[in-house]
Amino acid sequence: MTSFSTLARLGLLMGCAMAQPLVVQARDPVAGQARAAALCVTCHGPLGLSQLPNAPNLAGQPAIYTVEQLKNYRSGKRQHEVMGVIAKPLTDQEIDDLAAWYASIQISVTPK
Amino acid sequence: MTSFSTLARLGLLMGCAMAQPLVVQARDPVAGQARAAALCVTCHGPLGLSQLPNAPNLAGQPAIYTVEQLKNYRSGKRQHEVMGVIAKPLTDQEIDDLAAWYASIQISVTPK
Repeated sequence: MTSFSTLARLGLLMGCAMAQPLVVQARDPVAGQARAAALCVTCHGPLGLSQLPNAPNLAGQPAIYTVEQLKNYRSGKRQHEVMGVIAKPLTDQEIDDLAAWYASIQISVTPK
Repeated sequence: MTSFSTLARLGLLMGCAMAQPLVVQARDPVAGQARAAALCVTCHGPLGLSQLPNAPNLAGQPAIYTVEQLKNYRSGKRQHEVMGVIAKPLTDQEIDDLAAWYASIQISVTPK
């Protein structure tokens, strides 16, 4: 038999779960793609492939990695003349969206 | 008419160009692959694909980019608990070889 307190806890959990979309940022790869088209394509290409010898490919990078690097550029922990300027004004949401966009690009590899 | 000094300069340039293979390090992707198999596969996979959420894919990264990052880890300019330890003992030649290996892996992308 289910006790009242168990039901109450269940209700509380369900309430939290239902409220979650209101408080947790959703990563939006479509918004990220739009922002990337404005900010990132010159060096990282329209699909996250490097356009310069000293710019990395971003296609398929794990979102957690990209978020961490953009935050490091934003804070100055990771230093790069251009990326420091690019990352400086980004919000956490914009960083999450950019990371979601690059993570959504699937890559396959062929060793030579 | 070509002056002696122009010929002398040309000779000097040719001499430098011919001497170059003796002093410039050759990047060896096969040696890089062997070193990567010992040092890098746990986090970056046998073909440079991330095995952890906070480790980047290295497959297909431009060699110049990878060399710069490994030297930054080695010097401490770029900080990471694990990569600092991994990069510390690497020679320039070993870094060049690792970068050549990862650059030799061709990647193709498919956006979702």
